[in-house]
Amino acid sequence: MSHTVRITGITVTPVAFRDPALLNAVGVHEPYALRAIVEVTTDAGPTGVGETYADEEHLARLATVSHALIGQDVFALNAILARTRAALGGSTGDDSHGLTGKITTGGTVDRVYSPFEVACLDIQGKILGRPVSDLLGGAVRDEVPFSAYLFYKWAAHPGHQPDSWGEALCPEQIVAQARTMVDRYGFTALKLKGGVFPPDQEADAIRALRTAFPHLPLRLDPNAAWTPETAVRIGAELDGVLEYLEDPTPGIAGMAVVAGEVPMPLATNMCVVGFDDVEDALRAGAVGIILSDHHYWGGLHRSKILSGICDTFGLGLSMHSNSHLGVSLAAMVHLAAATPNLTYACDTHWPWKDESEDVVRPGVLAFRNGSVAVPSTPGLGVELDHDALARLHEQYLACGLRNRDDTGYMRSIDPAYQALKPRW
Amino acid sequence: MSHTVRITGITVTPVAFRDPALLNAVGVHEPYALRAIVEVTTDAGPTGVGETYADEEHLARLATVSHALIGQDVFALNAILARTRAALGGSTGDDSHGLTGKITTGGTVDRVYSPFEVACLDIQGKILGRPVSDLLGGAVRDEVPFSAYLFYKWAAHPGHQPDSWGEALCPEQIVAQARTMVDRYGFTALKLKGGVFPPDQEADAIRALRTAFPHLPLRLDPNAAWTPETAVRIGAELDGVLEYLEDPTPGIAGMAVVAGEVPMPLATNMCVVGFDDVEDALRAGAVGIILSDHHYWGGLHRSKILSGICDTFGLGLSMHSNSHLGVSLAAMVHLAAATPNLTYACDTHWPWKDESEDVVRPGVLAFRNGSVAVPSTPGLGVELDHDALARLHEQYLACGLRNRDDTGYMRSIDPAYQALKPRW
Repeated sequence: MSHTVRITGITVTPVAFRDPALLNAVGVHEPYALRAIVEVTTDAGPTGVGETYADEEHLARLATVSHALIGQDVFALNAILARTRAALGGSTGDDSHGLTGKITTGGTVDRVYSPFEVACLDIQGKILGRPVSDLLGGAVRDEVPFSAYLFYKWAAHPGHQPDSWGEALCPEQIVAQARTMVDRYGFTALKLKGGVFPPDQEADAIRALRTAFPHLPLRLDPNAAWTPETAVRIGAELDGVLEYLEDPTPGIAGMAVVAGEVPMPLATNMCVVGFDDVEDALRAGAVGIILSDHHYWGGLHRSKILSGICDTFGLGLSMHSNSHLGVSLAAMVHLAAATPNLTYACDTHWPWKDESEDVVRPGVLAFRNGSVAVPSTPGLGVELDHDALARLHEQYLACGLRNRDDTGYMRSIDPAYQALKPRW
Repeated sequence: MSHTVRITGITVTPVAFRDPALLNAVGVHEPYALRAIVEVTTDAGPTGVGETYADEEHLARLATVSHALIGQDVFALNAILARTRAALGGSTGDDSHGLTGKITTGGTVDRVYSPFEVACLDIQGKILGRPVSDLLGGAVRDEVPFSAYLFYKWAAHPGHQPDSWGEALCPEQIVAQARTMVDRYGFTALKLKGGVFPPDQEADAIRALRTAFPHLPLRLDPNAAWTPETAVRIGAELDGVLEYLEDPTPGIAGMAVVAGEVPMPLATNMCVVGFDDVEDALRAGAVGIILSDHHYWGGLHRSKILSGICDTFGLGLSMHSNSHLGVSLAAMVHLAAATPNLTYACDTHWPWKDESEDVVRPGVLAFRNGSVAVPSTPGLGVELDHDALARLHEQYLACGLRNRDDTGYMRSIDPAYQALKPRW
């Protein structure tokens, strides 16, 4: 008989790390990004770690589920998912915000389950002496390519010192930002977060990027800020320029209209954010590419199911990112490495994080030529730095932020600001 | 760094075991069923085993791929699938026969890959000290329920001694067969292989089963022997009697017509036999339940993707069986145990196999109350009996059968026989 490895304790630690004043379709990033670090201990010795959101309702759900998982076998992932579902009851996903689609009950379960699954896989790998990628079918690539995630931004948060990146409010400044990012990290694809300025200005920025970087794939993500008509017009203008156009307009019906009219594929992490959305989107022909994200698709194994769905239905597969720390990056790298049909460079907010702020010990997750080498040590391959975790938790306590609210923060600066979807 | 476990050798051994004269829509089972046992050895010590078809073209493909997999890491399943695909080139699936749907190139790759994947998972489990179910997310049930697979049959193969089951050519004999099977194995669901006699006679048999077993779910599988019109008529007659109606008529278009008219869900292992078929079937609304089968859905991990697709699109999931030995049964049990949404009792031909003929040592895979307990020892939990393997291989060599040909065998007995699809 095999030995059962039981969960003896779960700790959820909310942390905050500095975040630049990055602009998007619903406002501006607050001075701190919030995440929660989930640590799982076992009776077999090895511990595991996961990373997730830290909004208050999500933290409450994580606490509820943490209690329900004590005593579970870390190999019994199906059972852990079932217990997560049962512990949450019919709790619905009112923790959506402006940049997410509507989150269903199933989606809420998947979001809460994800960090526990990742931590259990970390433990499985450590016990088995295999990297997490091996638990997902094995890495098909030694390194995972990421894209440069370009943002319109202010030079500083109001009342704060400027960050090292400086202002980016026009095409020239976006090109300069891209140049810095490519020089520093070696990225081989560029993505611009749009939905901030009138669409023609953002199309100008894309054309400026094309001129400056003739050979790099380009993407534009207006976060559903455009009407279908605007999306069709700008899409036609950027024919041959964009690798894909991401969430130009809200909802499956609108996306389907645009998909039928523009020459490039549409990608989404807004109108398809969980398994409950897939059928409607497919029947409508709304999207050509799904951006996976293990944080809301229920962890790594369930993200592999999403990859199988994309493969089965002829959809492309890319990867979405929120502001994140090293635990998430490690999980993203293992998943992407073990997903053969993940053929686009993944998104990451990594460059926007201060190098001095992370919860994992440095050295493992280096970017080289825009890619991160897949850790080959057991588990996720990253180690928590508990001093750093304590510092970022202190920062969480001190910063006062408890829920992501890009719109509220923008309104505190510009009281007339309204989050309109679509805006143009 | 984790230690790589490399494949050092692969042996494929075709075997034959006695099979009763079971009737179906395309003829009659020959006196021997053919299977191939795949043994994989590694530089780490543990060996693994898989089981698959043994038709000659399939054996040739297995041999080709066996050579290509020497030196591969048993944890690198994605890479092993890619090498399988590459080794087969564009080899298309002309190894389909009367009871399968059209097999695509992708389907051929999945059929060839499957036994290697199962053997690698057997090895992984042995190295890790975990049952294969734990590599698939963990068992959600301790035992897996199976259905009694009832067949019209002759008392004996022409020129042979009668088997212990006797003749079953009318409703009364089918009920007697079901009684024996339920008494002996404790099955809690009944499936009748139809497509043999005129549909009204088979409907009579179903009604006789309903009378004799008022509480057991009933299924009827005419193997696409009916026209849509016949299927709609019989389906209406059996409203409230059948749990599901399996492949009443050929093809996705015909199934869709029937699905729209009959009250019970339609199940299939004929019009959806691989990932390439899923989208068309879904768009047509052709099926409500897919019968998975890891032998042609690309092994256990890819069968989990199928289960995720069924969950995502609201389809039911059951499990198909061909004549098989204990290695396949063990793999089926691990997969079914680790598939939460596999809520129907699985098919198995197990009772039709002589108890004295198997390639695994007895004792692990016992039926109790119609269910098989999930092995909890490392790997698949079954052990090859090499003496028995040698005996069944000798039987393969001696029996002269090299490809399954139910129709040809029937014609050798009744030269006027024709395999018509649909027949009624």
